[in-house]
Formats: sequence, C-alpha cells, structure tokens
Amino acid sequence: MASVLIREAKEGDCGNILRMIRELAEYEKLSDQVKINEEALRADGFGENPFFHCLVAEILPAPGEPQGPCMVGYGLYYFIYSTWTGRNIYLEDIYVKPEYRGQGIGSKIIKKVAEVALDNGCSQFRLAVLDWNKRAVDLYKALGARDLTEAEGWHSFRFEGEAMRELAGK
Amino acid sequence: MASVLIREAKEGDCGNILRMIRELAEYEKLSDQVKINEEALRADGFGENPFFHCLVAEILPAPGEPQGPCMVGYGLYYFIYSTWTGRNIYLEDIYVKPEYRGQGIGSKIIKKVAEVALDNGCSQFRLAVLDWNKRAVDLYKALGARDLTEAEGWHSFRFEGEAMRELAGK
Repeated sequence: MASVLIREAKEGDCGNILRMIRELAEYEKLSDQVKINEEALRADGFGENPFFHCLVAEILPAPGEPQGPCMVGYGLYYFIYSTWTGRNIYLEDIYVKPEYRGQGIGSKIIKKVAEVALDNGCSQFRLAVLDWNKRAVDLYKALGARDLTEAEGWHSFRFEGEAMRELAGK
Repeated sequence: MASVLIREAKEGDCGNILRMIRELAEYEKLSDQVKINEEALRADGFGENPFFHCLVAEILPAPGEPQGPCMVGYGLYYFIYSTWTGRNIYLEDIYVKPEYRGQGIGSKIIKKVAEVALDNGCSQFRLAVLDWNKRAVDLYKALGARDLTEAEGWHSFRFEGEAMRELAGK
C-alpha cells in the first residue's frame, strides 16, 4: 500500500510548491492576490537566512510500483515573536490536494509543525483560516486549536499599496 | 514645546518596553498570558539574528527643561512571509500610554512601520486588534487599513500547551 511521508522541502520542490500555493489561493477564492514566482520562493526559502520553512507531503509508491513519489500537500511556516510567550511559529499555509483529502494528511502536517515548534522551544503556533472553510475550521478545532477571533475578538488588519505608501510619505 | 521622537529601540530600553508590554496586555484584559521577562527580550531582540525589532516613542523635553526624554509608547514588529506577496512585516504590538493618547503618537509609529516596510521591499504589513478596542480599530481604518476578518472572513487560530504537546506526541 502507498504511504505518506512528511518531509522538509528542498529547493527543487519550489515548482510543485508554487503550483499548490496557486491551487490553495483559488480554493480560498483569492487567487488574484498571488504575485509570487518560483525564483522568489527559491531565493527566499533556501538561502543562508531563509525567510520561511516548508514541509511537503508525498505519497510514496508501494515497493515494485513503477511511478515515483507524488507531492500532494504542503505546510509553509516561519518563526514569529510573541511579546507574551517569546518565539513561536506561524503556519502561513497548509494545503492538501482535493483528491487526497480525508486521509489524515492535513493532520500529519499539523502534527509535524507541532513537533518543530516544541523542538525549537516554542510554546504555541498560530494560523489563519477563512470562516466559511468549515472543513478546515472543524479539523483545527478537533486537533485542539482555539479560535481566537471567536473567543477573544481578534481581527486581522492589513495595510498595503497606496495607503501604505502614503503613510510612509513615499 | 516638547516634541515626539520615534526611534529604534536599544537593548537598554528593554525594561521600559517590558513595562509597556504588561500595560498593553492589561488594557487588552489578557495580562495573565504574559510570560516574557527582560532577559528574554534582551537576548531575543538584540543578538546577532534578532527575532524582532522594536520602535519606541519618546517625548523630548523642550530646550532648557531639566528632565530627560520620557518613553511613552512602542511598536514591536518582525518580518513574515506571504506566499502571495513575499516578505512582509507583522506589527505584533503597538501601544501608547493612556495619558499620551490623542496626540498622534500611534499614527507616528504606524507611519514609521510603513516606512520600514517599504525600505525593506515589503508590499504590506499586518496587525491584529481586538474588536472591542474601537479607538484602535477606528485609527487603523482611518489610516487606510483593511479589516480582513470583516472583509474576507479570516479567523485567527492558536495551538498551544497540552494540545500542542499531544499533537507532537511528546
């Protein structure tokens, strides 16, 4: 039987990761916001001081099967800093291709992130999810996450584009 | 007349910054969540690869006045990574002491963050605010920020403590 492997991404995975980044943004109905390209991912994630880290999920063929491993999901994270608890992790993206959902691959990625967090002395990790993405919301809650927007009223704000340039006086 | 200076924090400011971190958490009614101490702030923000950066707001005395500068606010930020737009800034905390509000000091900190973002090739910066903190919500909106929770439905989730250790199998 095929098995699932969660491993650290290598630079050569960036093409596959970019395709999945675009699929995720399409699923989130926000694909017009994707401006990144493969070169940027390679430079930003695999240099001397990487700006992010990435896990990928691969289906490994059973022994004797002719095809190679097949990438079916990813989790992209970076380290952040809480003034309450110090260094933590932010899971910016987590994605499993539609045809591979319901097999526990998303949970495997989350579990690996929890492991990385603990190994790096982090007491927590955060992520953001769209409220209509019930499948994801239910999964995170089932795994023990707390919805801080619901529980404490946190709203996420963003400055960008013209508004940001005006603020900066540039 | 006294004037306001926004400058980068130095290691020696950590005591003052910690006091303001605690004041902010009290204002947010979440002060039981503050576990950080001055040593951690010094080590994490002022080593070779700092985990965060910090701006402080100081009131400078008018020439001839005997007292020194007085620290009245701070903005603590770090670099994050968006899979849509690359490197960005997250403003983790922004705070102005109650008796100095209404003088535009918060806006000055936000403007400085916008400047730092542009100088570092970031196209946006994010922050989180509690929905009942109307004063802050109104300020960020007036300065051009978009409430992504309201507009797109983003909710913030957090894994921590026992739930995270269980996930990691530790």
